[in-house]
Amino acid sequence: MDRKEFRDLASPAEAREAIDSLSLEGGVDRVSLAEARGRVLLARIDAELDVPGFDRSNMDGYALRARDTFGADEADPARLSLVGTVHAGEEPDVTVAEGEAVEISTGAVMPEGADAMVPVERTDEDAGDGGDSDGDDGTVDVLVRTSVAPGDNVMFAGADVAAGERAIGPGTRLTPRDIGLLSALGREEVPVRAKPRVGIVSTGDELVRPGEPIESARGQIYDVNSYTIAAGVEDAGGEPVLYPHAGDDPEEMERVLREAAAECDLVLSSGSTSASAVDVIYRVIEEQGELLLHGVGVKPGKPMLIGRLEDSGPRSDDAAGGSIPSTGESAYVGLPGYPVSAMMVFRTFVAPAIREAAGVPEPASATVTGSMATEERSDQGRLRLMPVGVTTDGNGDRLVYPVDKGSGATTSLAEADGVVEVPAETDYLEAGERVDVRLFSPDVRPPTLLGVGEDDPTLNRLLDDLENPRYLSVGTRPGLRRLRNGVPDFAVVAGPLERDVEASELGRWTREWGLIVESGNPREIEGLADLVAGDHRFVNRTTNSGLRTSLERAIDALADERDVSRATLTEAIDGFDLGLRAHESPARRIIAGSADVALGLRETADHLGLEFVSLGGQPVRVLGALDRLDKRGVRELADRLED
Amino acid sequence: MDRKEFRDLASPAEAREAIDSLSLEGGVDRVSLAEARGRVLLARIDAELDVPGFDRSNMDGYALRARDTFGADEADPARLSLVGTVHAGEEPDVTVAEGEAVEISTGAVMPEGADAMVPVERTDEDAGDGGDSDGDDGTVDVLVRTSVAPGDNVMFAGADVAAGERAIGPGTRLTPRDIGLLSALGREEVPVRAKPRVGIVSTGDELVRPGEPIESARGQIYDVNSYTIAAGVEDAGGEPVLYPHAGDDPEEMERVLREAAAECDLVLSSGSTSASAVDVIYRVIEEQGELLLHGVGVKPGKPMLIGRLEDSGPRSDDAAGGSIPSTGESAYVGLPGYPVSAMMVFRTFVAPAIREAAGVPEPASATVTGSMATEERSDQGRLRLMPVGVTTDGNGDRLVYPVDKGSGATTSLAEADGVVEVPAETDYLEAGERVDVRLFSPDVRPPTLLGVGEDDPTLNRLLDDLENPRYLSVGTRPGLRRLRNGVPDFAVVAGPLERDVEASELGRWTREWGLIVESGNPREIEGLADLVAGDHRFVNRTTNSGLRTSLERAIDALADERDVSRATLTEAIDGFDLGLRAHESPARRIIAGSADVALGLRETADHLGLEFVSLGGQPVRVLGALDRLDKRGVRELADRLED
Repeated sequence: MDRKEFRDLASPAEAREAIDSLSLEGGVDRVSLAEARGRVLLARIDAELDVPGFDRSNMDGYALRARDTFGADEADPARLSLVGTVHAGEEPDVTVAEGEAVEISTGAVMPEGADAMVPVERTDEDAGDGGDSDGDDGTVDVLVRTSVAPGDNVMFAGADVAAGERAIGPGTRLTPRDIGLLSALGREEVPVRAKPRVGIVSTGDELVRPGEPIESARGQIYDVNSYTIAAGVEDAGGEPVLYPHAGDDPEEMERVLREAAAECDLVLSSGSTSASAVDVIYRVIEEQGELLLHGVGVKPGKPMLIGRLEDSGPRSDDAAGGSIPSTGESAYVGLPGYPVSAMMVFRTFVAPAIREAAGVPEPASATVTGSMATEERSDQGRLRLMPVGVTTDGNGDRLVYPVDKGSGATTSLAEADGVVEVPAETDYLEAGERVDVRLFSPDVRPPTLLGVGEDDPTLNRLLDDLENPRYLSVGTRPGLRRLRNGVPDFAVVAGPLERDVEASELGRWTREWGLIVESGNPREIEGLADLVAGDHRFVNRTTNSGLRTSLERAIDALADERDVSRATLTEAIDGFDLGLRAHESPARRIIAGSADVALGLRETADHLGLEFVSLGGQPVRVLGALDRLDKRGVRELADRLED
Repeated sequence: MDRKEFRDLASPAEAREAIDSLSLEGGVDRVSLAEARGRVLLARIDAELDVPGFDRSNMDGYALRARDTFGADEADPARLSLVGTVHAGEEPDVTVAEGEAVEISTGAVMPEGADAMVPVERTDEDAGDGGDSDGDDGTVDVLVRTSVAPGDNVMFAGADVAAGERAIGPGTRLTPRDIGLLSALGREEVPVRAKPRVGIVSTGDELVRPGEPIESARGQIYDVNSYTIAAGVEDAGGEPVLYPHAGDDPEEMERVLREAAAECDLVLSSGSTSASAVDVIYRVIEEQGELLLHGVGVKPGKPMLIGRLEDSGPRSDDAAGGSIPSTGESAYVGLPGYPVSAMMVFRTFVAPAIREAAGVPEPASATVTGSMATEERSDQGRLRLMPVGVTTDGNGDRLVYPVDKGSGATTSLAEADGVVEVPAETDYLEAGERVDVRLFSPDVRPPTLLGVGEDDPTLNRLLDDLENPRYLSVGTRPGLRRLRNGVPDFAVVAGPLERDVEASELGRWTREWGLIVESGNPREIEGLADLVAGDHRFVNRTTNSGLRTSLERAIDALADERDVSRATLTEAIDGFDLGLRAHESPARRIIAGSADVALGLRETADHLGLEFVSLGGQPVRVLGALDRLDKRGVRELADRLED
């Protein structure tokens, strides 16, 4: 078998079938009511007792024989002898005979002999006549000013729930009201589906767990997929188990894979695309299971690998006390390595299978419908999983826009809300076309406000005061371009603009820009002239940035003054062409020791403890899209800007 | 102050204001990424490093100087000397000079000197020419069949996320994709809002915690509210704390209240309506806090009590390590005692405040809109919280029907899906009127199929195979009445029907009915004649039941045979008028020793280990509402009935 060839790609439907054919179910857990919320009942619960368990007074008043009240009314009350009292939680020590009444509290047991009760509001107490007409003899009578029928104001034993009745069906996902019903039945423990255990195995020598130190020079990056997929597993009703990072060592990887297969219902690995990792996975599956398919006609996700791993015996840590033995096998799915790709393939193929096994249906809110904000071309031939962001237009209609920063970009995670499946046959999505977006999780809240443009510290603070905004710091020029394309609600632009924009200025402020240098300014940079004259390692911003535009204008002015070309000056600056994307990045190169002078803001220099050489003030403007000015988020932003 | 008077009821808006004025916020927790899902970020997270932290190859191929490829194409490749290899996770030990290339893996660090990379697909390796024309000298050359620009196929350091960039805003509820972004930034721990701690205090001598034995003779019932409200608190993003049951002992109750106030942000009690309980609550609030209001114009919920309790100092068990001291006070809300009332008041007034404090907005799915299935009258003058069930009609449109079994009935919990607020000014809701239903929790799934009618064991098993059905065993006659009213999808009827029904019979079976007697049949009951003749304690079913109808028909036949009136016979049966609601209840009276003969089914006798005297077979029919026959749930039911 050639392990690198995917010429015969399985169809997405075949991949789904293969995953469905695997047994992911986890058996049974017995949980107490305090832990039952959200769990899925495994078996029907019938009432084992009557609720209430006794004939119960519905109100405060008097228990009596209904027959004794017949004909009574306001004008002509029935007179009964008070013979005792019953409180809630007490066993009655009195019975009611003809002509007698017993004071009774709400919820108390109806005393023997009584078949109805009258609420206290329809009665009065009176000195008793002791059965004769002598008047006060220390006894008390009750005057009943209404007539009642047998059963009135009494809840009979079992009237609420009767023993033997079907109470809650199997498969019910327990919500507070179900927990209420189980409480009423006195059930303290219920059998629920065990959550499918999903082992997450991360491989790759370059990956480091978050929280540990990283060596960038060695090309290390943080492991994004482990915690992300773990959270996705929880969302889908599974129980994630993170295994120790196995690096690229084949023996260690094999050990971890076998351990995970023995302990879990499903094992997921991601990014094991190196030849050695694939070899190990193949070997383990061949020796101990079955490969169902390798290679699926889906983009991304082509190298997806689906198999079955047998394990060596029942689990030792079965939470259900071992009452359900291990099924003897574990499913295995290999996910792509890039975070957005891994999340999309997980969401599309794996999460539904976990939900099915967990008995937790996907909430309807996990899929939303919207219109494509822009047109989008797609290659034919493979199902495309397209990461998209979701926003709303001025009418509150949902807009869907593709997010394509390259699948290696983790920032797509911040921008993408979900995935649109573009069928293999579709080569073109029109602007305005309706699409279904499967949100990455039901809790994903698309932003209430979408902004693009310049990176700016004042803006960052402003955004903190708004509810759920999304801001993409793509720079001034791409921000304007996107604003014209009609997706974002506002753009933030800095520095001089090259052309007019059709937009409404929501607010503006000024920021001081210039050169950032080491603390103490050892190179004695006082302005642009020094930058051009000396032999300094400079770090610029990208041409997308408004700061870069302002710098170029200042260089042009200096060139005019000296009557030389711009290029003469920029070529004299070592590093002028190295532009970094974010506003703090150049200054951080100074701290790292790899630069002497950086383009930046006074605020950045202050924040990082560096020195600042001002080259001027620069306007920062917030421009609202004309069709979004009434949108709530935009109005809130405008209000903040006025403050 | 008169503690029993609610003459000056506060408005619902005032009650909301009072609750909003209380501080429920819990401070800060620091949680690891593995526990961060669903938590609410307390502060903005900025990137503290560049992602990637180095210039990174996007593919497998060769790192080189772009300039060396200019002009290269398929026909005329550029020839470069291979000078080394860099794998992912390795520090390059080679630099790239003019005319040189380095083999590089996806994700590896670009070696110094290289400014672009070419994917392996666009290259070939060839025996090196060693700088001269001698041919094979052990070196290798790379033939590059395309030209690339500087930066092609390289992700520069910080291009994904740049240090200093705003990554995730405060108030974000963390979903898997946010956890992915935090992972990429290397954050292992994040500050999140502590969940508001909500203490739940249950009082009342009659209440017993589920799982403990109950004494019905003493009027004990299971405590429904504690676990139900606890689950509701979790749903709203709070952390419930159940306090030990305090009974009605004032000292114990006071001790528990003070303890809860010291440990929690909010204390809830329910059903403390007895004078002594209210006294204790008043005293504690007077001594140690402030009463904000008592008595609200809402039905149910009139005796609602809202106050503030000071506590004695900072919490000892602060999960955040004590970094945020206790606010020095706790909110207090007294809820009604009846479960449905308590849940409605909690849902309407308390849950929104907990959500606000937790920073967890209510999902849009927690409120649904539908049409009233029937008209409903309402008293004016108080806001009415109306418990309702939700179903769909034949067109898939949502129908809302009031559930009114008396607020003391816990079965309303099984039937009600949520609450409709009927304003004080409204005295009438028309059938078809649109109403908003606040579901009891966002996870509540209204049933896919709604049935009513006779209680039957065969039916119970049938229901287990259907997805999320709801069945209300109200008996044959009320079932038919409800079917005519247009709410349920089907009715189950047993025994002879008194009139024709416009409905479609989906299926039927026969059940054997008769008399259930003690094991061994000590009273030697062989048929109805023995029941009438002897002095036996009999237990009947209610007149709603099809079993009762069949019994009455049989008695009529016997009366005809003997030429006596029915009453002659029924009066000879001790307990004929005592009808119980559920099919097992009469037989269970035999087990309890309070009856000798019970009306019931053979299946019930077998199930309970009792003896059965058959009086005949009885048809059980499933009748589908004519406008619901195409509803998916109904079709599934019909399919099962055919099997």
